[in-house]
Amino acid sequence: MTSRTPRIQMLLTGSELMSGDTVDSNSALVGQRLGELGITCERKITLDDDLDALTAAISRISSHADILIVNGGLGPTVDDLTAAALAAAAGVSLTENPEALAHIESWCARRQIPLDAANRKQAKLPAGSDILPNTTGSAVGIAMTLGHCRVLCTPGVPGELRNMLDPVIDDIRRRHPDLAPRTILRLQTFGLGESAAQQRVADALPDWPQEISLGFRAGAPQMEIKLTAARDADHGLQTQCRGQLELLFGDHIIGEGNTTLAARVLELLCARGEQITTAESCTGGLIASMLTRVPGSSAAFEAGFVTYSNRMKSDLLAVPEVLLEEHGAVSEPVVRAMAEGAMARSGATMAIAVSGIAGPQGGSAEKPVGTVWIAWGSADKLHSCGLCWPVERSLFQTMVAAAGLDLIRRQLLQLPPLPWQAQQRRIDGAG
Amino acid sequence: MTSRTPRIQMLLTGSELMSGDTVDSNSALVGQRLGELGITCERKITLDDDLDALTAAISRISSHADILIVNGGLGPTVDDLTAAALAAAAGVSLTENPEALAHIESWCARRQIPLDAANRKQAKLPAGSDILPNTTGSAVGIAMTLGHCRVLCTPGVPGELRNMLDPVIDDIRRRHPDLAPRTILRLQTFGLGESAAQQRVADALPDWPQEISLGFRAGAPQMEIKLTAARDADHGLQTQCRGQLELLFGDHIIGEGNTTLAARVLELLCARGEQITTAESCTGGLIASMLTRVPGSSAAFEAGFVTYSNRMKSDLLAVPEVLLEEHGAVSEPVVRAMAEGAMARSGATMAIAVSGIAGPQGGSAEKPVGTVWIAWGSADKLHSCGLCWPVERSLFQTMVAAAGLDLIRRQLLQLPPLPWQAQQRRIDGAG
Repeated sequence: MTSRTPRIQMLLTGSELMSGDTVDSNSALVGQRLGELGITCERKITLDDDLDALTAAISRISSHADILIVNGGLGPTVDDLTAAALAAAAGVSLTENPEALAHIESWCARRQIPLDAANRKQAKLPAGSDILPNTTGSAVGIAMTLGHCRVLCTPGVPGELRNMLDPVIDDIRRRHPDLAPRTILRLQTFGLGESAAQQRVADALPDWPQEISLGFRAGAPQMEIKLTAARDADHGLQTQCRGQLELLFGDHIIGEGNTTLAARVLELLCARGEQITTAESCTGGLIASMLTRVPGSSAAFEAGFVTYSNRMKSDLLAVPEVLLEEHGAVSEPVVRAMAEGAMARSGATMAIAVSGIAGPQGGSAEKPVGTVWIAWGSADKLHSCGLCWPVERSLFQTMVAAAGLDLIRRQLLQLPPLPWQAQQRRIDGAG
Repeated sequence: MTSRTPRIQMLLTGSELMSGDTVDSNSALVGQRLGELGITCERKITLDDDLDALTAAISRISSHADILIVNGGLGPTVDDLTAAALAAAAGVSLTENPEALAHIESWCARRQIPLDAANRKQAKLPAGSDILPNTTGSAVGIAMTLGHCRVLCTPGVPGELRNMLDPVIDDIRRRHPDLAPRTILRLQTFGLGESAAQQRVADALPDWPQEISLGFRAGAPQMEIKLTAARDADHGLQTQCRGQLELLFGDHIIGEGNTTLAARVLELLCARGEQITTAESCTGGLIASMLTRVPGSSAAFEAGFVTYSNRMKSDLLAVPEVLLEEHGAVSEPVVRAMAEGAMARSGATMAIAVSGIAGPQGGSAEKPVGTVWIAWGSADKLHSCGLCWPVERSLFQTMVAAAGLDLIRRQLLQLPPLPWQAQQRRIDGAG
């Protein structure tokens, strides 16, 4: 127990991690939780399921780190070697732990399956170790002190690891009482690239205080900006920095925490008593799906239409056939008529309609793959724009759906579209 | 150049990997490509952007491995330290590489941006190293031989890494000409768990040949089974093993390669000249979205309906109001009427309709969160089942959508539903 920041390493085990059959998201989860305590893991080592290699790694790391978090290898099969490797590194034997056995017995009983030898193996822990409770799976975690190093062994199944992280963090905090949880503030943005955003901060805010660390995480379609204050005393500074970022990135900012574009749009719709409907061609239901992933979305969303063919655009949304013939399905007049038809049919007060060429087939010289028209708004304030995103089909659908939601968000907030969103590619000479 | 299997390690660098802001999918991609050559990486080390730590790791690993693949740290910022660490480990200086400079100049020219100092830094490579071409990004890769070890440095941006893997694999094969690409066969399944499937193979096929390695990768909603033959001579055996798995897992198998449930359903619909429509309540457009992610889906999918509210179920799909009143929206009669209405409105010959309680709100004692009714089939062969999946909202939607697609797949192939799919939870006394 020292007041300096503990040195921490991770050891990940599993042949599926070496073959690439599994992407390791577990160590990122652990890294995030450690970050909340202000600790950064200094090294991660990933190894195959090999007893000698695991034992050597545990011995070596525990000789100089304060904390070693092991992930994986706690299950019932012969490939699960973590307990044996830890026992070998500690120079102790494996013995049946009564607490672990009771856990496995009750786990089997709840599932009405017999306690077989494979399951019973999971109760054999290094002599002198403690258990970390597993609220979901059969294998308990293991906590043990080797010399000066606390070794915490956690399960490889992501859901089980997630549930075990609280006891893991508690164990670390008990041994390092000076560690205080950091205040982390997350801002969700749309329409910003990671490196451009970084550059903009560097240019506009050269005196960014080092007490507030700044992180950018690009996802599709959103980008997260993370502000971390190491000490309670820096809360005020953090709030001030957040204000500077809000000035800098303005209406790119969707909201705080884990807010999604869809959640923000639904929140704004509910606050204004509006109902939204969707009329989707190239996104094929994705916008409706993004909206309905949000709990409680039924308060502002009653119906959506996927009208993939011209006939369905006419039949279900009353798009005049003459528009389809004259301008084609991917055109400003058609997408506006789709939005109007969807509002009329559903009774919703607002709509997003999209029609585009997701590819890989279906493009032409005049309308290449990636061309899309979007209409959004209310019956009396209906807007439209034409864009071109020549990217892979699935990314195209994601970006178009997000752009549609962002355009509605901007309208609800009386913000103008972004310059690229306002682009009018009158590729068909219409409207 | 030896004929034994080369010893290979990976070194991953980036503070975003330590903080958990980024999940490392790159090393899995590399691992898969190495697996195709029959090589397994023996150790992965992940480090922060720290020059001394990186230099020490490169020196240590190159003293005993045959190949070291470094990922990350090639970009233009001060945090990108791979070239400097490699130069330090090799005991050489960084010099401007003419090929690398030409690449960066042309990269900037294409983007009409000036060649600034930050970009120019990426042309400074360890003296005596070669470049690995980067077809997408500004930073070239670096290849260099340290003692007996070939060090291959690759970019951290996933798309750039992906494009550089062919030259990386070529470099390895040139130095290890005995390595032959393996034959990998992937089977996609639905409705099987990873450990249950593994157990079933162990029980039913105890003499599984060791020449064919077998891997299971569980995803939501599909699980992949991978058969890898190390040598050309084992192709026949691989085919034989595949036949045994087909007998064992039967109609759980959706198809080969990267086939998705939606792609398989569309293929079967096209072959039979059928058209499908969707009527979605709790999945909110997800089934339509899964179908329309598949290129060419318009051949068998014209329209889908998202009817989230009772009113829309009546208005758009002509579900009789009396059914909604008597049985509730989550009921067998309603979901059957939704399927019938969607077929009538769209002219499609087949339908999937779902209505359920995705939660977290909306459950009751009689119909808890996770309750769902699914109807599927054609007008003259319409089936229905009621299930309960009390899982998190987003996973519930994914599993329900996949189950609906699988039920249609089974009907198209004249296969019975799985036992759990045929379950009739007559929770509302109807039907």
